[in-house]
Amino acid sequence: MHITRRETFNAAHRLFRPEWNDEKNLEVFGKCSNPNWHGHNYTLYVTVEGKVSDETGFVLNLKMLSKIIDAFVLQKLDHKNINTEVDFMQGKLASTENLAIGIWKQLDQPIKELGARLHRIKLEETEKNYVEYYG
Amino acid sequence: MHITRRETFNAAHRLFRPEWNDEKNLEVFGKCSNPNWHGHNYTLYVTVEGKVSDETGFVLNLKMLSKIIDAFVLQKLDHKNINTEVDFMQGKLASTENLAIGIWKQLDQPIKELGARLHRIKLEETEKNYVEYYG
Amino acid sequence: MHITRRETFNAAHRLFRPEWNDEKNLEVFGKCSNPNWHGHNYTLYVTVEGKVSDETGFVLNLKMLSKIIDAFVLQKLDHKNINTEVDFMQGKLASTENLAIGIWKQLDQPIKELGARLHRIKLEETEKNYVEYYG
Amino acid sequence: MHITRRETFNAAHRLFRPEWNDEKNLEVFGKCSNPNWHGHNYTLYVTVEGKVSDETGFVLNLKMLSKIIDAFVLQKLDHKNINTEVDFMQGKLASTENLAIGIWKQLDQPIKELGARLHRIKLEETEKNYVEYYG
Amino acid sequence: MHITRRETFNAAHRLFRPEWNDEKNLEVFGKCSNPNWHGHNYTLYVTVEGKVSDETGFVLNLKMLSKIIDAFVLQKLDHKNINTEVDFMQGKLASTENLAIGIWKQLDQPIKELGARLHRIKLEETEKNYVEYYG
Amino acid sequence: MHITRRETFNAAHRLFRPEWNDEKNLEVFGKCSNPNWHGHNYTLYVTVEGKVSDETGFVLNLKMLSKIIDAFVLQKLDHKNINTEVDFMQGKLASTENLAIGIWKQLDQPIKELGARLHRIKLEETEKNYVEYYG
Repeated sequence: MHITRRETFNAAHRLFRPEWNDEKNLEVFGKCSNPNWHGHNYTLYVTVEGKVSDETGFVLNLKMLSKIIDAFVLQKLDHKNINTEVDFMQGKLASTENLAIGIWKQLDQPIKELGARLHRIKLEETEKNYVEYYG
Repeated sequence: MHITRRETFNAAHRLFRPEWNDEKNLEVFGKCSNPNWHGHNYTLYVTVEGKVSDETGFVLNLKMLSKIIDAFVLQKLDHKNINTEVDFMQGKLASTENLAIGIWKQLDQPIKELGARLHRIKLEETEKNYVEYYG
Repeated sequence: MHITRRETFNAAHRLFRPEWNDEKNLEVFGKCSNPNWHGHNYTLYVTVEGKVSDETGFVLNLKMLSKIIDAFVLQKLDHKNINTEVDFMQGKLASTENLAIGIWKQLDQPIKELGARLHRIKLEETEKNYVEYYG
Repeated sequence: MHITRRETFNAAHRLFRPEWNDEKNLEVFGKCSNPNWHGHNYTLYVTVEGKVSDETGFVLNLKMLSKIIDAFVLQKLDHKNINTEVDFMQGKLASTENLAIGIWKQLDQPIKELGARLHRIKLEETEKNYVEYYG
Repeated sequence: MHITRRETFNAAHRLFRPEWNDEKNLEVFGKCSNPNWHGHNYTLYVTVEGKVSDETGFVLNLKMLSKIIDAFVLQKLDHKNINTEVDFMQGKLASTENLAIGIWKQLDQPIKELGARLHRIKLEETEKNYVEYYG
Repeated sequence: MHITRRETFNAAHRLFRPEWNDEKNLEVFGKCSNPNWHGHNYTLYVTVEGKVSDETGFVLNLKMLSKIIDAFVLQKLDHKNINTEVDFMQGKLASTENLAIGIWKQLDQPIKELGARLHRIKLEETEKNYVEYYG
């Protein structure tokens, strides 16, 4: 059984490589390289896999999952600058792909401690694109 | 090839164990244990797997699938109390997980008789959480 | 300028008149008269009208509005039985129309005290129907 | 007859008054005052009012409307920093309310030149709040 | 009080004036003038205005409204060719605007006979554009 | 890592076998066999699988993917008649299943040339049904 929790956060970011000049960054990353930042309403889906408990009928308690996502992900990302303020993204390109990997690493261990297994991080950047990461 | 049909139903439920008192139920199930019931607009996605017919271009006739879902699931759940009125949920905790398993068992055989295979039950309880069951 | 806040709540209800028998209630209210209750994920849109403050750029502080909606509406309705547990719905048919009027009466005065004016209550019961009330 | 065009753009912003210190800004604007910016996927609905042409069956040609929105609004806002890069927002608080007023002023005259009348700017900042401005 | 019913239908159409040649039609109507047709999933919102009945808590019985929309609109439009098969669109350009006017005329009188008043027809052609008609 | 691009197109189609008469086609395909066509707003999700590049943080450049989808799929399908105008659907039943297979064949090779792998075509015909094809 898989169970999924949907959360949202808003953040600023910029796609660029510091060792490239603005022209090169613009060529590769387009408008997303704007040095003055832009931002998104990200939608995050955290999917967890586990057995259904006979006692509760749950894979895991969704309120616990929600608290973990809040503490390990949303507190760090919501209303933040992904490039400059998020500890687990330091030194990485702030792409949706890298952000999904970073979120996976934040949640993998805490979800294990709830007795379940992280199955998938799905992260939507706009209504036209999203990524899925399975660890 | 997978083909999915989306349906909706509205129902009341309550999460609780009858052998526990109200305090214990409240502690484990939170607001969902309210003895006076609450309810949801459930969204159900039934995904079927099969070969595409040369004759019809279909995995299966969606109208037939829709009739089966109506007869075996919606007639029993729509505008009902899941805890007290749904035969296939008797004696089970009315969690989204258990409801998805119950719906799978209702549909598995009838879909086989259409010449296809049930692949997945996805059931959304609110816009913030859903479960997926693969049998 | 109008500003709108979207909130959600889940509740059980039943449409019936106690002085009618079950047949008459079924005839008028259909499946919604089920004596064992059913429920919905309601979506509520509260629209407020006011001037944009030069100091804040806001019609009103959305966090304040959100707190008011929570205290006067969501705390009373979320995960509740509309017919039996909601003080401001006592003695009223639990239709979407009456619920919208009840919510208006809950919010009208508190929003005035924020220096703005309640303009509209929009309440969706399912994805197929909603009501709008302008006071 | 009213006709509405929906567009989207992504931008960074910050809510703050430069003459206030960070504590005061945080108190009034909350997380939205983060000095390192955050951002949103904005959804813009431009509603135009006019007569239906006998010749075309249109209030106005939607492709023309789309080009005008692109030239006067999206080119200036998409993937930009609203506080520092958008000419028509200079010196204004970057609230959704002020942004809707700014967009109205950008579009009012060009839509008149198409022979129609701007009726409403609706601007969604997140899935939980939007503003509507009627001029 | 306003109450709205949402319905969907699928249809083919083409925008063109028979007295114009293909080049002129292409110039004015773009891809929508394709002589081989194209089509849409239309979403229709019918908004009705009336008093809330003390007896039922309803403005009007939504099942009655739904039957009227089905009989006077959906039976004529769903899975049809708007240009050639829909009686109330004969001799008219199959634009969203004209379709909304046609639907209004179909529903105005039957809704009066239910004791309410048609307030608005909202018709979405794609996720990027819709029209609203108030009679 | 999987990355998905969402696109939309509008098209007309008809489900029928030319060697069957209208009664037989109506029996098997229902309203979808209407000889005068009907149509849909299709929503297409193209999912690509690949490694995240250290240099760009991308699986692949979404603008390149978008251009490929436009050239090989949307230019051929948008505002077209699927039965009579789409080269890669000639001689095939215009079902959603066959359309998904056709789109897969259009995109498989060009995506390989971008250094990634096509993982899934998801195609929604209406809000009530979609297909998924994995090659």
